[in-house]
Amino acid sequence: MSRHLPFKQVDVFTTVPYKGNPVAVINCMGIDESEVTKEQLQSVANWTNLSETTFLFKPTDGKSDYKLRIFTPVSELPFAGHPTVGSCKAFLEFTNQSESQETRTFHQQCGVGSVELTVSPGKISFKAAQTAIEELDDAVVAQYEAALGISTVAKPKLLRVGPNWVVLLTDDAQACYNANPDFAKLAEIDASHGHSGVILGGAKGDGEHSYEMRAFAPSLNVKEDPVCGSGALSFIRYLQELNGYSEPTEISISQGGRLGRNGQISGLIKTKSGTTTTYHIGGDAVTAIEGQILL
Amino acid sequence: MSRHLPFKQVDVFTTVPYKGNPVAVINCMGIDESEVTKEQLQSVANWTNLSETTFLFKPTDGKSDYKLRIFTPVSELPFAGHPTVGSCKAFLEFTNQSESQETRTFHQQCGVGSVELTVSPGKISFKAAQTAIEELDDAVVAQYEAALGISTVAKPKLLRVGPNWVVLLTDDAQACYNANPDFAKLAEIDASHGHSGVILGGAKGDGEHSYEMRAFAPSLNVKEDPVCGSGALSFIRYLQELNGYSEPTEISISQGGRLGRNGQISGLIKTKSGTTTTYHIGGDAVTAIEGQILL
Repeated sequence: MSRHLPFKQVDVFTTVPYKGNPVAVINCMGIDESEVTKEQLQSVANWTNLSETTFLFKPTDGKSDYKLRIFTPVSELPFAGHPTVGSCKAFLEFTNQSESQETRTFHQQCGVGSVELTVSPGKISFKAAQTAIEELDDAVVAQYEAALGISTVAKPKLLRVGPNWVVLLTDDAQACYNANPDFAKLAEIDASHGHSGVILGGAKGDGEHSYEMRAFAPSLNVKEDPVCGSGALSFIRYLQELNGYSEPTEISISQGGRLGRNGQISGLIKTKSGTTTTYHIGGDAVTAIEGQILL
Repeated sequence: MSRHLPFKQVDVFTTVPYKGNPVAVINCMGIDESEVTKEQLQSVANWTNLSETTFLFKPTDGKSDYKLRIFTPVSELPFAGHPTVGSCKAFLEFTNQSESQETRTFHQQCGVGSVELTVSPGKISFKAAQTAIEELDDAVVAQYEAALGISTVAKPKLLRVGPNWVVLLTDDAQACYNANPDFAKLAEIDASHGHSGVILGGAKGDGEHSYEMRAFAPSLNVKEDPVCGSGALSFIRYLQELNGYSEPTEISISQGGRLGRNGQISGLIKTKSGTTTTYHIGGDAVTAIEGQILL
């Protein structure tokens, strides 16, 4: 049976429509999850051709505000960054909760558990799961430097945050922006090591913890991702490893300029000596398309 | 200035949502074309990530029903097949003309002139411009056969219909469906000869002019196009060259099965001895998403 369900296509990590990263969000909170099959959801996500399409359902864990199912064009994901921010924006609008000036906490049930979201005016953030960080052989680093045409200013690491990102820090923001990777070579290196892709960062040199960032994953058919939440998470986790901030530190990340986008991601490292460090990724989002979808 | 305009995302060459080829259509007939820039339209089309996004404007040629501007994620096109069928569907719905049981003629102003459209219940067809057909060297044909892993049952040709398609006919529908191209090799051959890609067809052997068809354009970053109007046009033009139908002949084309789609394209070759042969491509379409978009 085919029905119309509420639909939004939200632009994430931006306040300016078409400058961020889109996600399609379908509001299934008015139906029972058993009324749709995984195949149906997958066929919609294959058809939208967006990096992710999400479906909001009523929560089933007794503690979350909604359940989110996230699909790429070819598979279902347990979690993803920009789709989480965009889907929370859509949830707030669908449920008429988007106008509050208070800072509020919500929970998103998804494949990795119940993810904590902090919503304040102009910003939706998620608290990331703890992630592993791994060393890379010098020979592998040299391969990446050659394929990216850059030099690094600190030892690159491998971050497993869902995707397996190799994080590299180059001279400065301009060097990051100017990088012209050899995509064929990069795809080959990533594939041979089982890495998803590369996160390249460069400091803006304004003393404000501001960085330019780019994300390349040619072996997954994404030459360059315009604005990447899991990449930003990997990047701030890497910066903490490098700089060991002992007080809460906010990292401002710009991404997408070379693709005509202008994504703005806020990374927050919450740390105090003797306690566990937590990582938070957030930004603003704007709904560009709204209406109904056949499902 | 940002405004909301009517939006539809239409599934083309199918009656079953998510089984055809999508196009996003924005109704700009309520504003003046000078109120938006090409850069704005391009940025929307880059963001939707669909093969084509179109914009309906008031016509300016004094004879068409509407003007259509067609954008891929990276450039504006003078014409394209499935976006024309889908945009006409959206135009009919936007203007409350979709319910008629009559066969009617409309005209679409676009980069190649005023294109004639025939609308009947369950079918929207466009009359194609006359197209050139060119020979291919045997050595080049052999390269394609090797890259596609198929053999041909007639001499392949090059069709210039906007994209430059190499059209090949293999043993039968099953051989076409089963083909597993070497995409890297195919991309290399296409790029070295300035071809856009390959149209592969195979007869269903039901004596009804029914064919399975596939479209590959890996050098343009489209490994396989699910349902392809310009490919179907090239294919029926090729069949006419091969078979020289002397009476009007309808060709039924199925496409997209290997991608989980089920596109149905109707090709009509109108010919009578002594008169110019004309080619018509059509099919049904269904609106899957409707609402408003910020522009």
